[in-house]
Parts: sequence; C-alpha cells; structure tokens
Amino acid sequence: MGRLVDRRRMTRLRDGVATEVVDQLAVEEPLTIRVNGVDTTTTMRTPGHDIELALGWLVSEGTVHTPQDVIGAIACDENTVEVRLASKLIPPAPRLTMTSSACGICGADSITEVVTRRGTVLGNAARVSSTVIAALPDRLRAAQSAFDRTGGLHAAGLFTFDGDPVCIREDVGRHNAVDKVVGWALQHEALPASEWLLQVSARASFELTQKAVMAGIPMLAAVSAPSTLAVDLARESGLTLVGFSRNDSFNCYAGVERIRLAEAAAPRAAQPH
Amino acid sequence: MGRLVDRRRMTRLRDGVATEVVDQLAVEEPLTIRVNGVDTTTTMRTPGHDIELALGWLVSEGTVHTPQDVIGAIACDENTVEVRLASKLIPPAPRLTMTSSACGICGADSITEVVTRRGTVLGNAARVSSTVIAALPDRLRAAQSAFDRTGGLHAAGLFTFDGDPVCIREDVGRHNAVDKVVGWALQHEALPASEWLLQVSARASFELTQKAVMAGIPMLAAVSAPSTLAVDLARESGLTLVGFSRNDSFNCYAGVERIRLAEAAAPRAAQPH
Repeated sequence: MGRLVDRRRMTRLRDGVATEVVDQLAVEEPLTIRVNGVDTTTTMRTPGHDIELALGWLVSEGTVHTPQDVIGAIACDENTVEVRLASKLIPPAPRLTMTSSACGICGADSITEVVTRRGTVLGNAARVSSTVIAALPDRLRAAQSAFDRTGGLHAAGLFTFDGDPVCIREDVGRHNAVDKVVGWALQHEALPASEWLLQVSARASFELTQKAVMAGIPMLAAVSAPSTLAVDLARESGLTLVGFSRNDSFNCYAGVERIRLAEAAAPRAAQPH
Repeated sequence: MGRLVDRRRMTRLRDGVATEVVDQLAVEEPLTIRVNGVDTTTTMRTPGHDIELALGWLVSEGTVHTPQDVIGAIACDENTVEVRLASKLIPPAPRLTMTSSACGICGADSITEVVTRRGTVLGNAARVSSTVIAALPDRLRAAQSAFDRTGGLHAAGLFTFDGDPVCIREDVGRHNAVDKVVGWALQHEALPASEWLLQVSARASFELTQKAVMAGIPMLAAVSAPSTLAVDLARESGLTLVGFSRNDSFNCYAGVERIRLAEAAAPRAAQPH
C-alpha cells in the first residue's frame, strides 16, 4: 500500500500577508507497466493498488477479459508492475512517453529528464504582485467563451506580469489547452516565454508543470491542488508554482521570491455597534 | 476554427420528476499529430487551434524550440495535423494508443473501435432508483480517505444498484482511479461488472466512458459535465451515462430506461403565514 499523501512546506498569501505552513499533497509518481517483459506504458499515478491499476488498464485496452488471461502480476519495485499474459493473448503495443531505464523510473528520474531536456534554468528577475496573481482566475474565467455554457471545458491563459491576458485557449483536456497556448507562443517567436504567467483552470499535475518548464514560463498558477511531483519539479527547475488560487488568496509551493507582496490593506476602522 | 460546443438531448431528474431538455456540451474529437509523415500521437481534444496544439505538444516533448525548427504545419483534414520538422531534428517516437487509418481517425471511428473490442452490448435488465443515483457522490466522498486532506485526489467507486459501496480507489489521475477499481473487479472474477454502478469525482470524458464500457459496467455517473463523444459512445454501446450529479439532482445523457424514478415527495403542506 503506497502513500496517498505527503507533506511539503509552502507559503500562504492572503491580504498582503505571507505565512509559512506545511501542506498535505497528493503523491504523484510514475508507474511503469511491463507486459511479457516489455515496458509498455508509464502513467503518473498515486502509489497504491498498482497491480489493480495495471490489470484494469489491460482490461480497458481490450487485452484482458478474465483472471485466466493473466498468468501472474507482481510489483518488481516501487514503481514497476510486471504482468505476464496467457500465451494466446497479444500484448498491447508499447507507448512509452518518457525514457525509462531497465529498473523502472521514479519521480526523481522524471524530474531529471525534464531539467535535462530544458537545458536552462528559468531566469527572469522581475517580480509579480500578489494582487495580480490573485486576480488571474477571474480574468481567465471572464475570457473563456464556452465554459459557462457547458461546464466541461478547461482553460489555459498566458498573462503579462501586470495581469493582462495575452492568449487564452479552451479544451476538454487541460494538457491540450496548455499545448495550444504554448504553440501560439512558438508561432509568435515568444519562446522561452519568460515574460508571461500561465494560469490554468485545473490542478497542477507533473504533466502541466513539465509543459510550463519546457516552454520557459516562469510561473504556473492553478486554481486547485498541486501534486508532490509537480512541486518537486517546480523547485528543481526554478518555476514559481501557485495552487489553490481562489477567493483572493493562494498558496505558493515553489519560487516565492518571484512574488511581490501587495501592501496590506489599511487597518479597518472600528465598527460602530 | 472548430466547434467548442454542440447540443445533445438529455433528461434532467430532480425531486422524482424527469424533464427532457437540450444541453450544450463541450466537443471532444480525436486529433492525430503526424510528424514527418508518421502518425505519432492521438489526443482527445476540443477542435480548434489544432496547429497550435500540435506545435505546443512538440515543444513539451523537447523536440521544437524555435519557429525555425518547423518547416511547415498544416491541417490535412478535420482531425489530423501534419508537421514537418527541420532536417536536423529527431522526431518523437510514435505512441499511438488506438488503431488509426491512413486518413486520420474521427470520433465515429473511436466509438466503433470500442464497440468492436467490447464485443457485446451491455445487458442488464435491472433498474436503479433515481434516489440511489443522486446519493452516490456523497457516498463516494464519504468513503474517500485522503481527499479532504489534499483536495488533489480523484476517486472512482463501484456501487451496488442499492447504492452500497463495493470498491473505492483514489488517484491524482481519474483514469488511474477507474483502472484500479476495474482491476479489482477482474481479480474478484466480477467482469463484466454488470451488477455495479461506477461513480467518478470528475467529468465524463471519452476515455472514462470507454473504460466503463470495456469493463461491462452498465452505468457511469460523473459529478461534472460529459463531452459530446462520451455521450455518443454511451448511446452506441448501451451504457447509461449520468452527469452533473450534485445537490440531489442529475442529468441523464444516455440509457435513461435503466433509471427508475423515485416517487415524488408528498406535496408540501401550505406554509402558515
């Protein structure tokens, strides 16, 4: 049984005040599914019930229908499950999305691969006001054309450090919405996109964080929770990672030095009785 | 520019009353990205800005860094983008997850593939009370062990037709949570899982709907929106698809004949002034 939850330090920003706290995050780690000795797919998952995950994936692929279709399934190490199929079955074609070593990859390998591919650490000395960051979710929502009609579209938006929208895209897949804004930036000769912030209408997974890093974007802000691996990648690559950005407050999980605290509101006058 | 939104008829169920309405849903269709003449990946996306999507994906993969890395990018047909890279670049390895024809696949092909793989149409004459369905999201939430601590985990749960939990799993990836409960069902010799309902804490995408169909589950209920392709697949395969299940009401997008309307609450006594 794997760990569902792990702890990371973060900074909570609210009303111009920053507070250091320890947060509990969902664990995300890569699992490699090896079928008949061949590394077939890697999925970013929360550890635990890994054999069920591998078997269920083989059912979804249409490979496995009954328990007798599986001769054996074992966890080789923390992040690899090996499945041996009955000899009559044709295993699914391999579809690995990242390089993997013979002994399976772990979260640290995934981070190293992104940092190696990117080549450079994100660099931009400018700072962003906490007031601007807190306003981005509403600005993204206001710019979405279809969300209010369907409730089913994710959005990703590039914004200037002053909070002005640059490019907004919507998609049923949050990773697609991010790919679309990054592709737009490429077409406009704006990569690495070191002058812009990326706000997403979703959680911050490893995959979205990877896309921000690869595009050279200095800050990723999400309206919901980040995973452990997203936080670890952000720290390793110099990305500022914001989560739970809602109701005028947010949490910063990495790169807080890029955030400028807005001046605290003037103390309220005592209320008359 | 593709369509972001399309219409589907559905049945809204609230307080024991069923109302036929037309809903607007986010469009989901497969996009094949062809690189240097090779079909390299297929993603389920909302049409529109497809070239940006293909280019952004290549940036995330670490293949493309500047506009000069791309000799050309064109939309071959509605669901295929072809990219030709500068000769010095090594294209990403193909990672197709579904069979695709030479001219690209469309949503109808994706549905046909699932229905063909599954072999049988889902069959179960039993009906489920609308009261049971409306209560599933709260029951799933109550059974989740980690969500309240992190806000970052999706859950999937198998329930009996009476609403009793059978197997609940959590994961940062909603598709992983579903794979885990399906793998559990396989291990317990319970596939096809025609006696259970699947409730998820997410939207109903094509991918999750496909997993329910492949496992032979007769009903998929989601707390949020379905996509057009999820609805179309559900209708084609005989799956009952429920969305926006929250606050004691829900929408049924396919297979409403499997739902038994709870008796309407007794008329309220007139309120005293």
